[in-house]
Amino acid sequence: MTTKHPIGLIGLGVMGRSLALNLADHGFDVSLHDRSPQAVARSVADDTTGRLHGFESLADFVDSLAAPRKVLMMVNAGAPVDDVIAKIAPLLSPGDILVDGGNSLFADTERRSAELAASGLCFVGAGVSGGEEGARKGPAIMPGGPVEAWTALRPMFEAISAKVDGEPCVSHIGPGGAGHYVKMVHNGIEYGDMQLICEAYALMRAAGLDTDAMAAVFDEWNRGELRSYLIEITARILAQRDPDTGAPIVDVILDKAGQKGTGQWTLMNAAQNAVVVSTMGAAVDARVLSSMKATRLVASTRLQGPEARIDLPVAEWVELLRQALYASKIVSYAQGLDLMRTMSAQRGWNLDLGAIARLWRGGCIIRAQFLNRIAEAHADGQAPASLMLAPYFETALNGAQPAWRRVVAQAMLAGVPVPAMSASLAFFDAFRSARLPADLLQAQRDFFGAHTYERIDRPAGQFFHTVWPEVQG
Amino acid sequence: MTTKHPIGLIGLGVMGRSLALNLADHGFDVSLHDRSPQAVARSVADDTTGRLHGFESLADFVDSLAAPRKVLMMVNAGAPVDDVIAKIAPLLSPGDILVDGGNSLFADTERRSAELAASGLCFVGAGVSGGEEGARKGPAIMPGGPVEAWTALRPMFEAISAKVDGEPCVSHIGPGGAGHYVKMVHNGIEYGDMQLICEAYALMRAAGLDTDAMAAVFDEWNRGELRSYLIEITARILAQRDPDTGAPIVDVILDKAGQKGTGQWTLMNAAQNAVVVSTMGAAVDARVLSSMKATRLVASTRLQGPEARIDLPVAEWVELLRQALYASKIVSYAQGLDLMRTMSAQRGWNLDLGAIARLWRGGCIIRAQFLNRIAEAHADGQAPASLMLAPYFETALNGAQPAWRRVVAQAMLAGVPVPAMSASLAFFDAFRSARLPADLLQAQRDFFGAHTYERIDRPAGQFFHTVWPEVQG
Repeated sequence: MTTKHPIGLIGLGVMGRSLALNLADHGFDVSLHDRSPQAVARSVADDTTGRLHGFESLADFVDSLAAPRKVLMMVNAGAPVDDVIAKIAPLLSPGDILVDGGNSLFADTERRSAELAASGLCFVGAGVSGGEEGARKGPAIMPGGPVEAWTALRPMFEAISAKVDGEPCVSHIGPGGAGHYVKMVHNGIEYGDMQLICEAYALMRAAGLDTDAMAAVFDEWNRGELRSYLIEITARILAQRDPDTGAPIVDVILDKAGQKGTGQWTLMNAAQNAVVVSTMGAAVDARVLSSMKATRLVASTRLQGPEARIDLPVAEWVELLRQALYASKIVSYAQGLDLMRTMSAQRGWNLDLGAIARLWRGGCIIRAQFLNRIAEAHADGQAPASLMLAPYFETALNGAQPAWRRVVAQAMLAGVPVPAMSASLAFFDAFRSARLPADLLQAQRDFFGAHTYERIDRPAGQFFHTVWPEVQG
Repeated sequence: MTTKHPIGLIGLGVMGRSLALNLADHGFDVSLHDRSPQAVARSVADDTTGRLHGFESLADFVDSLAAPRKVLMMVNAGAPVDDVIAKIAPLLSPGDILVDGGNSLFADTERRSAELAASGLCFVGAGVSGGEEGARKGPAIMPGGPVEAWTALRPMFEAISAKVDGEPCVSHIGPGGAGHYVKMVHNGIEYGDMQLICEAYALMRAAGLDTDAMAAVFDEWNRGELRSYLIEITARILAQRDPDTGAPIVDVILDKAGQKGTGQWTLMNAAQNAVVVSTMGAAVDARVLSSMKATRLVASTRLQGPEARIDLPVAEWVELLRQALYASKIVSYAQGLDLMRTMSAQRGWNLDLGAIARLWRGGCIIRAQFLNRIAEAHADGQAPASLMLAPYFETALNGAQPAWRRVVAQAMLAGVPVPAMSASLAFFDAFRSARLPADLLQAQRDFFGAHTYERIDRPAGQFFHTVWPEVQG
């Protein structure tokens, strides 16, 4: 009888294989299974530690695990997760822990948690961020599910995760689908960051900067408060040449963006919960518009605008852009936190926004300096009503707002679309408006639908109706 | 044995009662039922035609109807609809027609259609627009469901609906949930129209116009291409004084807008289908922000902006606003049509967008001159890829775009939030961009996730990957 292993992994695609090698590197013996025996053999062959152990039969795989068994599934979201669960659940015992490390929709995770809890199994939906490289060298991990499962998984997850200032980029997010939910919002925020960078890039181009000059700007920005993985890779990308043509690589890449659905999921959830996430909304929309290339080419010959040209001195313009990007990014994160705060209250997840910001500092795509400021804003039990009202960010926004306005106004006048920057600024201005024109809107609703309204000179909760004049209409 | 009646109506709230009286006015005998016998008695008492007939028992009500029976339910969306169906369906016979005239979610309508079809019943989800007055004097009606049901209901629906140029504002929308779906999109568009008007109002206020001057502007606008019910009632509202204080009524109404969910449903559906509806998105978001009055009051003392002041000559500014409002409205309708076109293709509904625009010309909240132009753009089998590319609207947008840019830029510089106008303009500019910065975005996705990209110099469908440099990040 051989020694039982502390963890098993099912699904040896890019992410699964990388996590298995990462676990082995950290001294954990890992049982492996995949519907393809070749995939198992390949992973075992890649291993130099002797700690990866392949099993062709699922029963043997399960039998190789120490109790309580821990099984990490790395299969595609959707039906494949349910398929694997249907096959393995009957082989497991009460108290065993099944982890879904894929990009599952949190609502599916909630359903599966409830179903498996009925047979005494602990289900953990864990968001894993960082792509192949992160999975191999240190991802950010966002596990949800029961606390007992977290306690059992913690040593392994802490060992393999990214570290920032010695702190592992993993923490228990909350019960049920909370882990996958937070990973989904992370992805929505990532969409926003990427779109904002693209808008800054478009506005540099409109001011006449070439790609080398832009690369230098992003390198420079990566030394300041914008310091982040996405800014850093943007500098690398803009400096990259296409080997075939010698042209800047961005000039040969087709401007049609793909997406895999987590951005859309985030928007659906925000709409359902009446939370404004207009910056990431603009980012998702921008990808949709980019994908309509053929229609855009037709429209470009028929719909008119000014020449996309910014005539400010480059150094001045670049500094305005930096401030606009930073302020817009703050709004985007404020909205993402609003969404998590709302769902946390609604579901009783008790999300620790500061801890989430801390764990996002490493391993994941949105890792950034800036997340330290968000963590600080939520440290010591602080819970600002909005990130925009945390002192550090309030000051940053107030400092940046004149530049931000000039950038968005110039872009609108020059016909350069900046949907995310302008949505962010409009949100900032609405949020800080003591009075919005919704008085007229309430009057309209009362006019056509007798929906009633409150008054500024009467206590809240008292509703009034006006008998409006007849209209021809 | 008394004569059987051609239709029965269940649910005598404001809408149900008004539709019953409308049917009676047009010569139809209507059986009435409500869980409250008082409500039945009240409706019968209100009737002067002798054509409303109350029934306390549901069985007697059903028995009073001519075959195939036609029953119109006017109850609240959600569980109440299912409750009524559960009670009445067992009393009906195959071929009978059950109509849900409430604001049900189209997905619920699809489910109910399938369930009732199993027992041979025809289910019709019919959107009814126009509020109490519309229901009483002539609503717009958007019935979905089987064609046989439409044929049976048509004479009654045509009789009671609003008429424009002699044409009844009702037509068969499509199978299943198509009717309720189109009503939902109507409501989303209504949100957009209302928000755009509110933004124009805020920008007039910033330029120093008082409410009487604003009322005169809206009256003037109602004589041109903006002519519509919402513009007309806005003029009336701005001219209205509060009897208690003598102040303009808008100055005493609290700026917290309510919403009942159909706007949010539309956004969820758009996100799920990857269709951009950014103008109505901004409108829904604006209502959410308006409802956060307490937070806004705090934020207004801490987050800074310029004085909300526009210094252009009033007449010039008002004309710029008119053009910005019109152009933004075109974008909003183009997006709403995009959404219907997408769902129509996905569900095989075969929606006739021209017919829908025609029926919206009367009875409903968004009724407007402008809908004739949309109908014309879809007449004779025309199917523009976007409303913005229909010749009339292309010309209108090209004419308005310089003014539109000035308005949005001025608003951004003055700190007046115009989320819907700016989202519309950003959409216009992105839509007419031959090149968007999504080339950089695809490079980023390839950098961190090996998602690959297409090239401008290779056929579509060939995907490339760059081996990117290592980063510290």
